[in-house]
Amino acid sequence: MLYPGNIKKDYKRNIPHKNRGMKLENLINLSNEYYLENDIAVIYKKPTPILVCQVDYKKNLIKEGYYKVPSTLDYNGIYRGKYIDFDAKETLSKTSFPLSNLHDHQLLHMKRVIKHGGISFLIIKMNSLYYLLDGKLIIDFIENNDRKSIPYEYIENNGIVIKENIRPALDYIKVIDSYYFKEENL
Amino acid sequence: MLYPGNIKKDYKRNIPHKNRGMKLENLINLSNEYYLENDIAVIYKKPTPILVCQVDYKKNLIKEGYYKVPSTLDYNGIYRGKYIDFDAKETLSKTSFPLSNLHDHQLLHMKRVIKHGGISFLIIKMNSLYYLLDGKLIIDFIENNDRKSIPYEYIENNGIVIKENIRPALDYIKVIDSYYFKEENL
Repeated sequence: MLYPGNIKKDYKRNIPHKNRGMKLENLINLSNEYYLENDIAVIYKKPTPILVCQVDYKKNLIKEGYYKVPSTLDYNGIYRGKYIDFDAKETLSKTSFPLSNLHDHQLLHMKRVIKHGGISFLIIKMNSLYYLLDGKLIIDFIENNDRKSIPYEYIENNGIVIKENIRPALDYIKVIDSYYFKEENL
Repeated sequence: MLYPGNIKKDYKRNIPHKNRGMKLENLINLSNEYYLENDIAVIYKKPTPILVCQVDYKKNLIKEGYYKVPSTLDYNGIYRGKYIDFDAKETLSKTSFPLSNLHDHQLLHMKRVIKHGGISFLIIKMNSLYYLLDGKLIIDFIENNDRKSIPYEYIENNGIVIKENIRPALDYIKVIDSYYFKEENL
């Protein structure tokens, strides 16, 4: 079937277009809902921490509040018995991921999680692709480089591309399976 | 050494008095800080979810917001490689713990966490004592009873008392060790 402009409509290929323009955070939230409903994983976004200064208790209304800097990563939960802890970051830069995106205490948090046996990573949107980059590789890069950004080449070579999909919108659990549960999958 | 009124000061015994009147939430937050600083566990309280309706972006000020009902439990994190997820509840009733303290979606969340291999429980303050009551026992009680509250006797018989201390203020990790890591401790 041909549409105006002689464009052949291909639903399957078109659907990820629906996601285009959708914020990375929304794609992950939608995926988490899918994982929850299908009993695959229990992962939530933590609420944004807000310092509440003034409340009208009669109306249950917050009249004065300020955003606080979070000391952990945004998402955590459980998958296949493992503790999962990650954050989602976007950059418009095509050549490198600025490390200013990651606060010092967030880096420390990643280190702690990994040390205690959890899985921690970043989902990075860059050059229209979604990468899962393992926390150990991020820490390793930072500790062995003076650079203030991670070059795209490092992400391309060490990250794993997460495919956009219909449901879930961003199937990062599939990448966790292939990266962190390699042995169990054999 | 005797103090006015012939009272022998016993520092060790007196210190938990400092905690008296301190909210359960604060005792747990202090304990979590201790666990974090001493590299024992990585457990945080989730921020209270707030629906932000109006923001003055120039001042970074939230002018209108409302508290939302949380769909998970308040605390989660990792200990000894295990995913930990729990909530803290207080009741003034001396005879039973009202189940209205626990929302339906919080109960569902507990079930999911346990099913996926995590550890979930409540810390209940009742009759001036702190109990850790395992999630499975709570679910089991609710599914086999029509009562709208858990009798104190059930909590006394099945919960484990968490001792108040100096640092950490409430050593619930010790109870997790004895209850959930019994075999590993042998």
